Amino acid sequence: MQLLEERIRRDGIVREGGILKVDRFLNHQMDIGLFEEMGKEFARLFAGCKVNKILTIEASGIGIACIAAQQFGCPVVFAKKSKTKNIAGGVYTARVESFTHGNVNDVIVSRDFLGSGDRVLIIDDFLANGAALSGLIELVRQAGATLVGAGIAIEKAFQPGGDRIRAQGVRVESLARIQSMSVENGVVFC
Amino acid sequence: MQLLEERIRRDGIVREGGILKVDRFLNHQMDIGLFEEMGKEFARLFAGCKVNKILTIEASGIGIACIAAQQFGCPVVFAKKSKTKNIAGGVYTARVESFTHGNVNDVIVSRDFLGSGDRVLIIDDFLANGAALSGLIELVRQAGATLVGAGIAIEKAFQPGGDRIRAQGVRVESLARIQSMSVENGVVFC
Repeated sequence: MQLLEERIRRDGIVREGGILKVDRFLNHQMDIGLFEEMGKEFARLFAGCKVNKILTIEASGIGIACIAAQQFGCPVVFAKKSKTKNIAGGVYTARVESFTHGNVNDVIVSRDFLGSGDRVLIIDDFLANGAALSGLIELVRQAGATLVGAGIAIEKAFQPGGDRIRAQGVRVESLARIQSMSVENGVVFC
Repeated sequence: MQLLEERIRRDGIVREGGILKVDRFLNHQMDIGLFEEMGKEFARLFAGCKVNKILTIEASGIGIACIAAQQFGCPVVFAKKSKTKNIAGGVYTARVESFTHGNVNDVIVSRDFLGSGDRVLIIDDFLANGAALSGLIELVRQAGATLVGAGIAIEKAFQPGGDRIRAQGVRVESLARIQSMSVENGVVFC
């Protein structure tokens, strides 16, 4: 998606250690006009797939998922990273290792909000090692729901997550795929 | 706001210990159509206030804030609950005690995304003890930005946060204000 690639070139910052900061527009400050265009693109890619639920994970996937959901006319469910007092009863659970935070979380979704009748589109901001996406796919599988696919804003295609998950037969659509990046030369897209 | 009050009556669940579960439509599964109506109501309430930035806090404020931001035509910044690798450089910091999670977090916003030129509307899903809102107000103060007010989805008006913060001169608009609630009798609105 040209608009997103241009924005990454303009406002993204590459740091040592494979870190791409996009917090000016994507995951700290959020450009809602950009999210609207991304939502339209997800709707075009997954048109006719009868998506009736969008699944994402807190925190930075939520904004993109909510704006995209307007295009699909469906609710969003976000997986939570820890069990709080407010979730009683049955939950689906998967373990997710966070590259960004350097820790491991159980991610959970209430059984009330994901079930066998659902046709689920997963939406998230980043795909790199694929840990978060694999966890969300596991939640969909536990629910017996149909996984339509995954819509990702930015895929670090030089990391193994995307290839690994596509090899499992999951449709993964990334709006911007990064082939390589470095502090010296910035970002190169696929 | 009648639509939200009706939804709380229909789908909200009161539990012992002052807990109101609204995870069917507000903070786990999210009803985007409802969020759109809430966004329009915030826009009506804060019309003419020249809001150019919405500030919220992860995670459950983000969806409401993003949909509301469409009405104001402005970006959203969400305060983060811990310092991650991806935020380098200067941040504003405030301490927030979470009633829901039973812990204390530092919440941070990058200095890059909040400054003296900003006219800020804070948006959050709940106001009870006022800890999160006080933290967000502190971040706005540190930035030297102008606080237009706070738009809250559900205020537990029987807890002290709302009154305390209004007494500080902050304009707080809550779409549903709960006067009392109990497992036996459900929710009574102000």
